[in-house]
Amino acid sequence: MKQPDINIAMSQLNIKVGDLAGNKCLILDAIQEAKNENVDLLVFTELTICGYPPEDLLFHQQFLDDCHTTIKAIADHTENITIVIGFPRNHPNEPELRHNSAALIQDGQIKMVYDKHKLPNYLVFDEKRYFTPGNHDGIAEVTINGQLLNIGVTICEDIWYEAEPVVYQAEQGVDLLVNISASPYATGKISSRIKMLQRRAKSYATPLVYCNLVGGQDELIFDGTSCAIDAQGEILTLAPSFDAAFIAFNFATPKLNITTPESKDAELYDALVTCTRDYFQKNGFTQAVLGLSGGIDSALTAVIAADALGAEHVTGVLMPSKFSSDHSINDAQVLADTLGMKSVLMPIKTMHEAFHQQLAPQFEDYFKGQTDENIQARIRGTLLMAFSNNQNAILLCTSNKSETSVGYTTLYGDMAGGFAPIKDLFKLQVYALCEYRNSIDPAGPVIPQNTITKPPSAELRPDQKDSDSLPEYEILDQILEAYLHDHKDAEQIAKALNQDLALITKVLKMVDRNEYKRQQAAPGPRVTQMAFGKDRRMPITNGFVH
Amino acid sequence: MKQPDINIAMSQLNIKVGDLAGNKCLILDAIQEAKNENVDLLVFTELTICGYPPEDLLFHQQFLDDCHTTIKAIADHTENITIVIGFPRNHPNEPELRHNSAALIQDGQIKMVYDKHKLPNYLVFDEKRYFTPGNHDGIAEVTINGQLLNIGVTICEDIWYEAEPVVYQAEQGVDLLVNISASPYATGKISSRIKMLQRRAKSYATPLVYCNLVGGQDELIFDGTSCAIDAQGEILTLAPSFDAAFIAFNFATPKLNITTPESKDAELYDALVTCTRDYFQKNGFTQAVLGLSGGIDSALTAVIAADALGAEHVTGVLMPSKFSSDHSINDAQVLADTLGMKSVLMPIKTMHEAFHQQLAPQFEDYFKGQTDENIQARIRGTLLMAFSNNQNAILLCTSNKSETSVGYTTLYGDMAGGFAPIKDLFKLQVYALCEYRNSIDPAGPVIPQNTITKPPSAELRPDQKDSDSLPEYEILDQILEAYLHDHKDAEQIAKALNQDLALITKVLKMVDRNEYKRQQAAPGPRVTQMAFGKDRRMPITNGFVH
Repeated sequence: MKQPDINIAMSQLNIKVGDLAGNKCLILDAIQEAKNENVDLLVFTELTICGYPPEDLLFHQQFLDDCHTTIKAIADHTENITIVIGFPRNHPNEPELRHNSAALIQDGQIKMVYDKHKLPNYLVFDEKRYFTPGNHDGIAEVTINGQLLNIGVTICEDIWYEAEPVVYQAEQGVDLLVNISASPYATGKISSRIKMLQRRAKSYATPLVYCNLVGGQDELIFDGTSCAIDAQGEILTLAPSFDAAFIAFNFATPKLNITTPESKDAELYDALVTCTRDYFQKNGFTQAVLGLSGGIDSALTAVIAADALGAEHVTGVLMPSKFSSDHSINDAQVLADTLGMKSVLMPIKTMHEAFHQQLAPQFEDYFKGQTDENIQARIRGTLLMAFSNNQNAILLCTSNKSETSVGYTTLYGDMAGGFAPIKDLFKLQVYALCEYRNSIDPAGPVIPQNTITKPPSAELRPDQKDSDSLPEYEILDQILEAYLHDHKDAEQIAKALNQDLALITKVLKMVDRNEYKRQQAAPGPRVTQMAFGKDRRMPITNGFVH
Repeated sequence: MKQPDINIAMSQLNIKVGDLAGNKCLILDAIQEAKNENVDLLVFTELTICGYPPEDLLFHQQFLDDCHTTIKAIADHTENITIVIGFPRNHPNEPELRHNSAALIQDGQIKMVYDKHKLPNYLVFDEKRYFTPGNHDGIAEVTINGQLLNIGVTICEDIWYEAEPVVYQAEQGVDLLVNISASPYATGKISSRIKMLQRRAKSYATPLVYCNLVGGQDELIFDGTSCAIDAQGEILTLAPSFDAAFIAFNFATPKLNITTPESKDAELYDALVTCTRDYFQKNGFTQAVLGLSGGIDSALTAVIAADALGAEHVTGVLMPSKFSSDHSINDAQVLADTLGMKSVLMPIKTMHEAFHQQLAPQFEDYFKGQTDENIQARIRGTLLMAFSNNQNAILLCTSNKSETSVGYTTLYGDMAGGFAPIKDLFKLQVYALCEYRNSIDPAGPVIPQNTITKPPSAELRPDQKDSDSLPEYEILDQILEAYLHDHKDAEQIAKALNQDLALITKVLKMVDRNEYKRQQAAPGPRVTQMAFGKDRRMPITNGFVH
């Protein structure tokens, strides 16, 4: 069995897009740590220098020039060590084109540059917009720790295909496969990715080092979970998910303890906290504010924010109207007190009356449609944004995926906010995560049981319930998943769920008709492979009939 | 000189994305008209059946199936005529892949299917996300009007390259080049496109029929301007810009009168009106509402809306605060009266006081930063959205590109709206179009001269002027254009404009820092090749230092 006897380390860093100086510091620290620990080969992640995805920053030549300068400066710190590091570069012969590249650097010399072959251009990925595929085979012949080794380097997407360039490297009998990645999280992806990597290592009978980016970048969450897999497909070492890590190991030494994967709920919850924490941190904010309605969406959002930022950095604003039930105010207050967050009570009555007084004479029927309901939501949005402006806090939007799918939200009202921690969770997932979070707190449940058990309501008119105008969430979420995630048509969904075709068609029409709202929504953690936004790009003007 | 003696027509249709039944009606009407006029060959536009761009509708197999059904139904109406028509299709052997295709259909038979070779994946285009390039040469040998002809068919992007497949078709000596397009408008593009087409026809010494989509689709504007160019590169016929048209001609007959291109301002203004009109019409709205501040942005927006929808379908709401000057209210009222639109006066005083009363005790300094200014803007947004909800009107956002670039706008305040007609115009272009629109009205200027000449101000605090915190627009617009459109760096811009580097860096930082606002902005007409949105995809979390 192949097992190069060298000390290897994976540097799973939390990189910030564009922050070349900050990222360079992290990289140099990792190199120093590797030297301290007698590491021979140090592996970083995809586009280490600049973060992933840099998007249209890549069209600024100054940005590329600065990346080139940075990689050279880092090379100067590689005496007595070999590193594999990611960076973007201009095509050597056609400088208007760009490559997504990996450099193998040893003792200050760039020994090889490999350019990514497979450029993903689906879901959230737009790599064909930016990059040209490379044609180098990615094999570097280097002497490390006195051994002459052939190392096959690839980048992220390359290893997802049983094809070039990985197959070629394996056929050439490389001693080690190294893949540097920025593979975003989605539910279920961590375990399927590791299994894929195990199949590759085993089928090529070659040890594999896979180093993946960690941390949140706008809507994307990189889980890390870097790993080393031996030539028999066994996991030698597994880095943590959602935390930066420096992991040193040697294929010639016995296996380390492999962390057992957590429960699915834990993984999903950690992903949301990571993305929220990093959005604040990387954008220079420490304070959050949100409206607490006593309902389940704002409760989960508050708990995630408290876990991400510390409860003392989160302010909950209770903004009851004449339609708010006593239990709502009470539930919200109990949550804030249990969590230890600041809470403010601010009834909307005077503003609501002022708007009514001003507007009612203008309209034949002021109470027609959603006019008055939306005014309540927008007064709340305005109050919350005043907190945001005055306290330098990011307003958290509490919308979930079920309600934004069908448009059961108010633009500039409850949709207002800089970040929306649960935007990619269906309603039933919101319930599940509340139960999960309540189950793990050593001090007991933080989310009041009443918040979890009462029927969901927007409380914008007397005795309103979500189920007045929507199917029960047990049905709705399944319809939405079949349509949004699986691209099923109305008839297929009706048949599979044994539901009336008219109901399905009604829901799908609501989804289509509310595209205009979603295109003005706040960003939030992507935890599926079909989040609203870059995964799903739909026209607003759309005459397609289901 | 090649000049096939057949009657040709171009059907420059205003197609709605997804509306297969409606589009089929338009197509069948055009076929009937062609038959009535003894047309032999009728040419449509790219993706005629489903509109352009269908975006992720293409991932729904039902959508593709319905497109296939529609093209077959249309083929049944082609007795005694030949048509070239665009449609999307599954790859014949790998049904999970798709082609952007053109069918040449004659007497009910699909004689040839050509799949687009060149797939644009830059600016607003994502075609590599959806389509696989074809490899058919696009040459159909058909008998039309008793003549055996070789016709070379291509699709849009294909003809922009002096390369395959057009060069191959020319080398094979085809009798006619046919290109079906969906080429979106940008300032300057109409004339450069026509010149490119003239170069192609001349250099291949082959007549060319170019049929281009017309109308607005969300942010995109298709200008039409279809044309026929003879083998010497002379324009034989030119369809109107921004209007649907059916144009019949024969290369063997003398030249028609060629419409002289309009002034640049006229072209740009018509583009904005077209996009606004179609956004309303295609989404089933007839009414617009907007805030009239007395300033130039809301004035131009109102005039565009009146031209798109009829002044009687536009309501202007005047919402003065204690900071509003008398002339502002007067200028707004004069505009509304001159245009003949409904106007409503609605001071924000009572709401403003109610918010102040509620919020002031919460904050150490209620007047810190933009808190109170933004509340005024958000009260206005809420009032306007009440009109939108109650009157089933789309709220027009009046933001321009200069102010959204630097974030000189209020989220959920003046950024609120379903459509933003001038979002891709820099401030100086707003002035130019006001002057233009005033110059063409037979009844005299509609926009008060005072609106044009007074210094721009948001009037959110006493004596505020835009130039208090921003460079003069004469400088600002140039900085923005150099950065956003031309990707210049701070030093290059400072040098080119002979300005202080610190000023340039400050402006570029403002642009970067306000990305989060723009990602929640309303859609609006794209009139440059670098509009915010799909042309320019930037991270919010972005540490790049200029």
